[in-house]
Amino acid sequence: MPKKILRVNMSNLEAKFEDLPAEYAALGGRGMTSTIVAKEVPPTCNPLRSHNKLVFAPGIVTGTRAPSSGRLSVGGKSPLTGGIKEANAGTPFAQMLARMRIGAIIVEGKHAGDDYYLLKITMNNTEFINAKKWVGKGLYDAYKDLFKEYGDKVGICGVGITAEILGAMAGVCFNDPEGLPSRYAGRGGLGAVMASKGLKFIIIDEAGAPGVEIANEEVFSQGIKKLRDALMSHDVTKPGGALNSYGTSVLVNIINEAGGLPQRNFSSGQDDRAEKVSGEAKAEEIKKRGGTRPHFCNPGCIIQCSEVWVKPNGKDPVGVLEYESVWALGPNSGIYNLDDIGELNRACNDLGCDTIEAGDTIAVAMEGGLVSFGDGKGALNLINEIRKKTPTGKILAQGTEITGKVLGVTRIPTVKGQGFPAYDPRAIKGIGVTYATTPMGADHTAGYAIAPEILGVGGQLDPLDPKKAEVSRNLQLATAAVDASGYCLFIAFAVLDIPEGLEGVVESLNGVLGVNLTVDDVGPIGKSIIDAELEFNKKAGFTAIHDRMPEFIMEEKIPPHNGVFDVTDEDLDSVF
Amino acid sequence: MPKKILRVNMSNLEAKFEDLPAEYAALGGRGMTSTIVAKEVPPTCNPLRSHNKLVFAPGIVTGTRAPSSGRLSVGGKSPLTGGIKEANAGTPFAQMLARMRIGAIIVEGKHAGDDYYLLKITMNNTEFINAKKWVGKGLYDAYKDLFKEYGDKVGICGVGITAEILGAMAGVCFNDPEGLPSRYAGRGGLGAVMASKGLKFIIIDEAGAPGVEIANEEVFSQGIKKLRDALMSHDVTKPGGALNSYGTSVLVNIINEAGGLPQRNFSSGQDDRAEKVSGEAKAEEIKKRGGTRPHFCNPGCIIQCSEVWVKPNGKDPVGVLEYESVWALGPNSGIYNLDDIGELNRACNDLGCDTIEAGDTIAVAMEGGLVSFGDGKGALNLINEIRKKTPTGKILAQGTEITGKVLGVTRIPTVKGQGFPAYDPRAIKGIGVTYATTPMGADHTAGYAIAPEILGVGGQLDPLDPKKAEVSRNLQLATAAVDASGYCLFIAFAVLDIPEGLEGVVESLNGVLGVNLTVDDVGPIGKSIIDAELEFNKKAGFTAIHDRMPEFIMEEKIPPHNGVFDVTDEDLDSVF
Repeated sequence: MPKKILRVNMSNLEAKFEDLPAEYAALGGRGMTSTIVAKEVPPTCNPLRSHNKLVFAPGIVTGTRAPSSGRLSVGGKSPLTGGIKEANAGTPFAQMLARMRIGAIIVEGKHAGDDYYLLKITMNNTEFINAKKWVGKGLYDAYKDLFKEYGDKVGICGVGITAEILGAMAGVCFNDPEGLPSRYAGRGGLGAVMASKGLKFIIIDEAGAPGVEIANEEVFSQGIKKLRDALMSHDVTKPGGALNSYGTSVLVNIINEAGGLPQRNFSSGQDDRAEKVSGEAKAEEIKKRGGTRPHFCNPGCIIQCSEVWVKPNGKDPVGVLEYESVWALGPNSGIYNLDDIGELNRACNDLGCDTIEAGDTIAVAMEGGLVSFGDGKGALNLINEIRKKTPTGKILAQGTEITGKVLGVTRIPTVKGQGFPAYDPRAIKGIGVTYATTPMGADHTAGYAIAPEILGVGGQLDPLDPKKAEVSRNLQLATAAVDASGYCLFIAFAVLDIPEGLEGVVESLNGVLGVNLTVDDVGPIGKSIIDAELEFNKKAGFTAIHDRMPEFIMEEKIPPHNGVFDVTDEDLDSVF
Repeated sequence: MPKKILRVNMSNLEAKFEDLPAEYAALGGRGMTSTIVAKEVPPTCNPLRSHNKLVFAPGIVTGTRAPSSGRLSVGGKSPLTGGIKEANAGTPFAQMLARMRIGAIIVEGKHAGDDYYLLKITMNNTEFINAKKWVGKGLYDAYKDLFKEYGDKVGICGVGITAEILGAMAGVCFNDPEGLPSRYAGRGGLGAVMASKGLKFIIIDEAGAPGVEIANEEVFSQGIKKLRDALMSHDVTKPGGALNSYGTSVLVNIINEAGGLPQRNFSSGQDDRAEKVSGEAKAEEIKKRGGTRPHFCNPGCIIQCSEVWVKPNGKDPVGVLEYESVWALGPNSGIYNLDDIGELNRACNDLGCDTIEAGDTIAVAMEGGLVSFGDGKGALNLINEIRKKTPTGKILAQGTEITGKVLGVTRIPTVKGQGFPAYDPRAIKGIGVTYATTPMGADHTAGYAIAPEILGVGGQLDPLDPKKAEVSRNLQLATAAVDASGYCLFIAFAVLDIPEGLEGVVESLNGVLGVNLTVDDVGPIGKSIIDAELEFNKKAGFTAIHDRMPEFIMEEKIPPHNGVFDVTDEDLDSVF
């Protein structure tokens, strides 16, 4: 059976399978979502009304034996940035969708009235079920209910209370292999788009799924072997390597040491206390408590950077505490206590919000005087205002920029309305170029210049050197291609340094698709995706002025380097 | 003595008189503010940080015997729209400033810390006085205090509690001839800009002022006579005419009849109950209660559309209830009771916020479920949340668009972030073209197409005909010139119909400036102002996409005409 598109019209609760158009045959992940969004969504539409669409697409190799490939992309017009958005997550849900040969789910229209629905998708059927009983409920409980109701083999996608109030920091949540609501296509408020349509959950049951069609098994096998070898040998990605041992939080000490770990709403780039929330400290604590580390976010991952964080008594699993989450809910809020961070992360997962945006928002709210920097319990009370749907909760749910405006804060770390990730662009400038210029709004994953600037991967650059347009561009193009492939972006650590690994990636794509791409095609594939995204944003009203840093980042010197963001406008404009 | 600029640096509390540059000699009002803002304010700056400036400028003939000319403009980068802003008001303050030969006050920098200052300006001196004691106080009491402290001959400009919380609907308030804080350069949040700098009040004492220099007294006298004759003979402007008898609220019945008076957040264009809050009903009530009507907002006005609204017992004067305010705080919120509207208007004046933005905001908050449409007491409680500086108050203080977003409302009547005035653009399309295309954000005064579309002034056009680009453009150009002259825009009713009146206006300008303008120069003068404004906005990141109506205005049919806004994008783009 050929791949299909499932088109879901929430206006009349209809879901129909369509043939995948031939021109979409080689697309996956971000390539699929951005193509469909650019084609079907009017760029000037209100992102929370009926003309917006929400598109889900597994990557090209997702659902196969390819290692670390269980990713899917979610796309639409972002209520946070006003531009096109792709957010992706690693989750068994992605693999199931791919094995069911669903190339994309397109959710369109908008259900009239206040009801919410659950869409159940099996190989033979689709069904809409009233989901009212989960409205206002936390996702930990809801996912538990849903697995009980629909069986523990299903995949679950859902949105939480943040989305119910149309909060622009609402993410789209997927289950991890333990069934926890901890894998997020978090950024850009796509959860609010889903909720705005009246869709609360998607449950997929892959029973009877044919699996991913592989056009050339030999080429595919050869490719994934090369990639596997690269992943198994690179210090960052190998078993027992940096990510496997400490998770993404291995970066806490590294970035703090580099003076680029933002503290207290981007007031400093370094703090000795950061060590207390480092990956090393966390790994030790997990071991002591009886959590799980390493752990995979989807079956078949070699890197296994994930983990299951638990309370001191070893109970109440949260799921992974990623580096970005630890930073956002930790040092950036002046909090240096893993238990506070764990509970904040649990609340974010439970409420269905993006941890990065939530952390930036809490920090801005702290600057605005709602609670003090460092007050972990206060921060938790604050985020729980969302649960109560209070005015304060509704402010926070809109994210960093609106929270800052409402509270009269003018140090707001956003580009295109999206909060900064965990790297201060005054101390590490290439990542700042990515924040400024990616069509996604401030986003580290869009072109992870940290690799060459800090980690010595794919080169070795001075983080303080402002000439970073080229490296950011190249990384952004390559990343768009990776985001289309279905591979986790972390394979990049290995394949940037090991040419055979990159060859393997391309061969695996060739194997699945039955095409003959070469390594030289990676950039152009990424470029065609980003071009579509830039075109969408242009039609939505974006100009070069929107590719700029906030004023305080240009003017306030940050310790310890005491520099500002001094990449010129010309350099920024030269990226695309 | 020649005209001066007073440059006020709030960073170091310095105020210095500078010579007015020769190229500014013929500028006044909006011409002066937009020229200075375009020249001195970086278009991409954060409007609430130190790089923004706030510019005050009386009109060219302001302070002279020219009738209805006591206006001044306030300019800066708007925290509401993100673009250039000019808001103007009629007030004795304007005339005093002009007679002191202060061509402009430029407030720049930003005082560090939380203190607020009062700037006192006399002919010989400037003085900064700590204004802490008025922080958190309503403006009715504050203005009473200030007149007591500084004498009843001073002019007062100030900002209220809305500005203290950096609310984007904070206006800049001036005293009326009774000393009430009821004359507002209201739109676009310039009050927040003033507060952001640490400036709470400006007190001017014109003792010893030389008066406005008139280059050619004969030409001037001839001009103002012609204008006076026109104003005295036109049905709209003459004593006993429409504006004089009923104030601007004379429009309530007219616009309601035309099906263009928005009700309950732009859900209908007509409601029989509107009659209860009409200008006719109000005039009768004022008479009964012992308020004042007609009344002038500044000495020397012939039109005298103003009034003093009072409580049923004849006490507690509010000041004028303008048509726009009555609509915004009345029918648009489902409120059809003049006492409720009066108290809401008092609260807006007291808190220092723009009544139009406040009314749009309340209506959107009603749609978002905070209180019910029609609940006047509830609306008053809501607006008083600003006084208490609660989270709800801080949301509302940011105006219509942010309130709508935070509350999950998608029917938000704004262009460029600024709330719609009192005319539904689906029923009266030329005014909609002005809303969409003026550099100011949705603003009726920028090009008052209601004159030809509804009032038969300056022509007679079908309000439902979408071909209105040309009339809006012509009106916008002429308006920019009027806003520079110091004349009240309402002279336009007379001079659009009576050619001698327009000649008189031009002659009066020639008389003051010693130049030889003709009627044909009016358009080009306006164009040069608007060009500077458009250029600023372009540099601030605005594109044609920002000259568009909100989605619901394009899609939802409004009774009784049951039409949508169907002016084409091409037509909108052809305006400028």
